[in-house]
Amino acid sequence: MIRSANDTFLRACFREPTPHTPVWLMRQAGRYLPEYRRVREQAGDFLGLCQDPDLAAQVTVQPVDRLGLDAAILFSDILTIPDAMDCGLRFVEGQGPVLDRPIRSPGDVERLPIPDPGAELRYVPDAVAASRRALDNRVPLIGFAGSPWTLATYMVEGGSSKTFGTIKRLALEDPDTLHGLLDKLTRAVIAYLNAQIEAGAQAVQVFDTWGGVLASRAFRELDLPYLRRVISGLRTTWDGTRVPKILFTKGGNGWLEDLADTGVEVVGLDWQTEPRQAGRRIGDRVALQGNLDPAVLYGPPERIEGEVARLLDDFGSAPGHVFNLGHGVHPDTPPEHVEALVEAVHRLSSRQ
Amino acid sequence: MIRSANDTFLRACFREPTPHTPVWLMRQAGRYLPEYRRVREQAGDFLGLCQDPDLAAQVTVQPVDRLGLDAAILFSDILTIPDAMDCGLRFVEGQGPVLDRPIRSPGDVERLPIPDPGAELRYVPDAVAASRRALDNRVPLIGFAGSPWTLATYMVEGGSSKTFGTIKRLALEDPDTLHGLLDKLTRAVIAYLNAQIEAGAQAVQVFDTWGGVLASRAFRELDLPYLRRVISGLRTTWDGTRVPKILFTKGGNGWLEDLADTGVEVVGLDWQTEPRQAGRRIGDRVALQGNLDPAVLYGPPERIEGEVARLLDDFGSAPGHVFNLGHGVHPDTPPEHVEALVEAVHRLSSRQ
Repeated sequence: MIRSANDTFLRACFREPTPHTPVWLMRQAGRYLPEYRRVREQAGDFLGLCQDPDLAAQVTVQPVDRLGLDAAILFSDILTIPDAMDCGLRFVEGQGPVLDRPIRSPGDVERLPIPDPGAELRYVPDAVAASRRALDNRVPLIGFAGSPWTLATYMVEGGSSKTFGTIKRLALEDPDTLHGLLDKLTRAVIAYLNAQIEAGAQAVQVFDTWGGVLASRAFRELDLPYLRRVISGLRTTWDGTRVPKILFTKGGNGWLEDLADTGVEVVGLDWQTEPRQAGRRIGDRVALQGNLDPAVLYGPPERIEGEVARLLDDFGSAPGHVFNLGHGVHPDTPPEHVEALVEAVHRLSSRQ
Repeated sequence: MIRSANDTFLRACFREPTPHTPVWLMRQAGRYLPEYRRVREQAGDFLGLCQDPDLAAQVTVQPVDRLGLDAAILFSDILTIPDAMDCGLRFVEGQGPVLDRPIRSPGDVERLPIPDPGAELRYVPDAVAASRRALDNRVPLIGFAGSPWTLATYMVEGGSSKTFGTIKRLALEDPDTLHGLLDKLTRAVIAYLNAQIEAGAQAVQVFDTWGGVLASRAFRELDLPYLRRVISGLRTTWDGTRVPKILFTKGGNGWLEDLADTGVEVVGLDWQTEPRQAGRRIGDRVALQGNLDPAVLYGPPERIEGEVARLLDDFGSAPGHVFNLGHGVHPDTPPEHVEALVEAVHRLSSRQ
């Protein structure tokens, strides 16, 4: 077992003291970086970039090089699983993902293969391994997957949605079919994340991006049980080291206790959640990750620093805070503003 | 003072006992109703319909006639105020509202007129009066306005937004300008709602549709103080009768206590908020309105009935619940499903 030179992120996940608050950012590798856009052009389309382990590793490491972040996150997409399940995934300019073969009937679910992370999804663990090599143990690497419910929304709706009317109608008209789909996705996500861990991912995050569109009762019926199953199906250690699990439900403010009780080490907070309140509710059980409004990065650097100071203050100085945004970096964010953010987090949280 | 034949809605707002739980629905007058679409065609464009008091009254009353709801809400739009402030409002098919003259500089704010509800907005109180005549005291009429923050988002962004990046950047770069705009909007909203009350609106709702896109600290700085000012600026009685005020912040689950403390009689809940938890937090101070997921109306009538039963159970039988959706009726909702909803609320909550 080899530790990263900078292990502040992993320590904070386990609520151990660190010399400064570690910081990484959702979508830290991506379109706002000119060096990313150059590699993206080289790769052709977006899925092609995800599927090329060497290029994926290159963009995974870019923000660590430029910004001095305390963790890397694999460059990939949550829709790799529906893609490998043969749903006909395409990314349409200005519209987002489209799935040409949506899943809406018992037969659709039955025909769905559970993808093998050693075969059709092999490029993902390969990208993990390549990223680990490129990082050379400077900082830990985070793997990730979408939650079963979140993946199901794309697969049933046939893409992004505003109202999620099709999947919600399915939940009312034919709940068995939806649960069948969620069950298959749960097994797929577990195999997928364990393969990333075995390939070298030192932590994993489950993105429950669309949990927050559900009413409380529906969340407890359609999302939470599968989150629990995913978390309990994951390796807790690999290569002699504990692997922390992070769960981020966007819009999950009302259900923080449920999220903490899934067995994760870290709960991610969206920017609408009050850090002090979250701390009182679940801070004794899990570390907290978040939660700056990504739109703050549009502001001038001196205001960004002010917002960082207020947020660090809200989270308090007890161990167990991983600084992050409350959602992904917006693509039109100036990179210098992100640099100012990371620098401010490190400087203002320095405990030496 | 003349009471409505059915005053269950007003009684519930004041947490008085009622023979059944009253129900009305956000966007109950609108595109899902064929009789609405016929009047809309007659009126030409959407703004034209809002601006014609007789046609507006006609569509205001339609859902009461068809569905037997316990309250009517004026057919109008929150953007009447920015329109009267000369922002160049247009509705673009498939894109929503566009404001051709967005507000982004101190000069922009300075030039903004505060519209006179007796002059350029006269059609709104006129539509209130016409609706009251058409309702003939069968059920009470609710007036409404957008919150200052919500109106400001449209005026600064120049329309709808996904990231609200322009207004959030303005908040960081030039907070004085934004506060100047919010101040003017606050005065405009107060005058506008009081004019509706004086014209016969028996309750008013403030739609804080975009409060939930703010981080907690930003909500307390940019939204909440103006909500408080609006509420405290409204008439508490008119024509010898108390006028209840309803505040609905979509995504406001984290701030229910703040919303209840603004001085309103009723807090509206989005469908992500847990009714039992909301009851424990603020049920001793205000009535609660909500909060069925509007997507439930896509389901078959027998499932709609089941969801109504569960929700009535969650709210409990103590007085002070106004049944509603957690957001507006989706335009592609089958009208018979809405009929099934209203019928189920009345039957299942009947206390006689």
